[in-house]
Amino acid sequence: MILPETATEIRPTRSARPEKATRRLGSPALLSRLGSLAADRGLRRLGDRLLGLADFVTTDLKAVEAALESILPPDNLVGNAAGHLLGLGGKRLRPLCVALASRAGSGFSPAALELAVAAELVHNATLLHDDVVDASDTRRGQGTARVEYGNAASIFGGDWLLIEALKRVRRAAVPGTLDPLLDTIEEMILAESVQLENRGRVDTSRAAYFEVAEGKTAALFRWALASGGRAGGLGEASCQALAEYGRHLGVAFQVVDDLLDLTGETGKTGKALFSDLQEGKMTYPLILAQERDPGLRSALAEILSVETPQPPPAALCERVIAALHDTGAVADCRAFAHRRALKAVEVLAPLPNGRARQALATVAEATVQRNR
Amino acid sequence: MILPETATEIRPTRSARPEKATRRLGSPALLSRLGSLAADRGLRRLGDRLLGLADFVTTDLKAVEAALESILPPDNLVGNAAGHLLGLGGKRLRPLCVALASRAGSGFSPAALELAVAAELVHNATLLHDDVVDASDTRRGQGTARVEYGNAASIFGGDWLLIEALKRVRRAAVPGTLDPLLDTIEEMILAESVQLENRGRVDTSRAAYFEVAEGKTAALFRWALASGGRAGGLGEASCQALAEYGRHLGVAFQVVDDLLDLTGETGKTGKALFSDLQEGKMTYPLILAQERDPGLRSALAEILSVETPQPPPAALCERVIAALHDTGAVADCRAFAHRRALKAVEVLAPLPNGRARQALATVAEATVQRNR
Repeated sequence: MILPETATEIRPTRSARPEKATRRLGSPALLSRLGSLAADRGLRRLGDRLLGLADFVTTDLKAVEAALESILPPDNLVGNAAGHLLGLGGKRLRPLCVALASRAGSGFSPAALELAVAAELVHNATLLHDDVVDASDTRRGQGTARVEYGNAASIFGGDWLLIEALKRVRRAAVPGTLDPLLDTIEEMILAESVQLENRGRVDTSRAAYFEVAEGKTAALFRWALASGGRAGGLGEASCQALAEYGRHLGVAFQVVDDLLDLTGETGKTGKALFSDLQEGKMTYPLILAQERDPGLRSALAEILSVETPQPPPAALCERVIAALHDTGAVADCRAFAHRRALKAVEVLAPLPNGRARQALATVAEATVQRNR
Repeated sequence: MILPETATEIRPTRSARPEKATRRLGSPALLSRLGSLAADRGLRRLGDRLLGLADFVTTDLKAVEAALESILPPDNLVGNAAGHLLGLGGKRLRPLCVALASRAGSGFSPAALELAVAAELVHNATLLHDDVVDASDTRRGQGTARVEYGNAASIFGGDWLLIEALKRVRRAAVPGTLDPLLDTIEEMILAESVQLENRGRVDTSRAAYFEVAEGKTAALFRWALASGGRAGGLGEASCQALAEYGRHLGVAFQVVDDLLDLTGETGKTGKALFSDLQEGKMTYPLILAQERDPGLRSALAEILSVETPQPPPAALCERVIAALHDTGAVADCRAFAHRRALKAVEVLAPLPNGRARQALATVAEATVQRNR
């Protein structure tokens, strides 16, 4: 029951700060990824819309990347852990949400940029803590901060990112953003509790799953959208609509994420398959499949019992993947995510029907179509 | 290199919330403790002053206890971890500092009370994270939150306390307190990094030790004092003086704490002896003793290598304790702490010489005389 790091193990295995040149993905990484995805799938219409979206937000996303790039955490063990994930790119979906919401109003101001960066920092902070709790070894195709710098540095690195995010929101000084962010972080923490309590339980309920998805994922999307709207000077009704969009988008995003953990291509997601289950997390696709094929329980329980980094037995995974398809769980999860994405677009009705609103619709559609 | 908790181990071993009646120490616990200590040592004069101090701040400390008591974290795994330490009493030294600083001005207002509670919450948040990082099993004479509820719940419980503290400071709305608290927390995190980097190093420098003491301990005292002053409407010079007092007090407090870890009575401190060293931390008394008796190195290295909860070999501890006395390290640490306490009192000169200032002088003296 103790952290297994001895005094020597806790020291960094790589102390050098990664080279700047290789540190970031090309700026609008999400868009190029989503663009190629759409082409892959022959979704020409979505592909065209994504090109339009890229055109619309390229400058904003470049500004976000530059701002993230300019955050140089202190050059020590904790600072390196804090900066580790920032250096590995990521979808930047939360900053994109802030940017688009602000553009539904008066535009992507310097204050909105601070909020966009803050959203990404809070997200990264939770990833650093999650990776410690889940004992995760890889993320974004690389070793996690806890592997590179130790669990302790990863915990304090997460704390540092959280404080940095709050400082930026404070500096942005957009009314109605700081208190909601504190509430949002609290929601995220409480969702972690629900997840911990259900850890390793094959009988995790749908209700518990959605409580976690709403709290851990959708809450921050909600904040990102509403805060972007506030930075853009939008009225209360529009900000509420944006928050509601964020909620639907967040849940849809999470369900797709969980599907990809089971049926995705490792090379694309940057994570091993079945990692959620090995971390003790029963996700929506598994809950659905198991409701429909109770015989699946023993296979799930067995995979749960295999500790990472050992991979789960291939035969069991094949059995589960077959059941996910045969029971219709995969199709139903995709359909569910699709419905939530449509709902997200629907609730934007109070907003002026301009380019920003159309871009948000594209983001919602692309989010549920993605394969990474 | 993974958190050793399996899915089942991570569940709470005690899920019931502790009974309220037994949950708290009697309200001005610090004062009764310090009072008995002064009597023990025959420090009659200090004893009398402590009685006067108790009289002066009893109402304030009762209000702090009541406020801490009224914080009911959510009744789930993370909430229980967050509340665990609050339920085990503690010295409440940081809230006392806020209260006295506010009384040097216009008094202990509801806003000052919020700040006092926030100081205690930040302190407890860092303890929950530290206990995970240090794999500590006991604190305040009881099992740590991570032992009771698991490492994961202890990490998220610390996060919860931090957010709760920030919400309270926000609510207090005393100008010049929120941004400095964010800076203070950042300082605390960076000091953790210095501590991690020096972990297990018998050759830790004095400079590194004081960097950690200033950042991990003194920074929060500084904030508590300055913020109490601001809540009391004091001018900038007085608040700066209070912050400086807090800095000296914090360093003195830490040095005494480190001495007690080596030479204290376990029954009184609630912690096993030599726990700092076993956690890989070279403290000031050990650094001094080793500078003067280089032969001590091998004994220190050997104690470092014994993992808790196994106690370090008694013969080695006796060797180290003898050296601490023979080299004059104990006496010099006490003298050092005493000088910093005097310095703390000295820098209060810009404040009106009233009851609050005298009480702060008493706190400084009692802090370095304490034996628990």
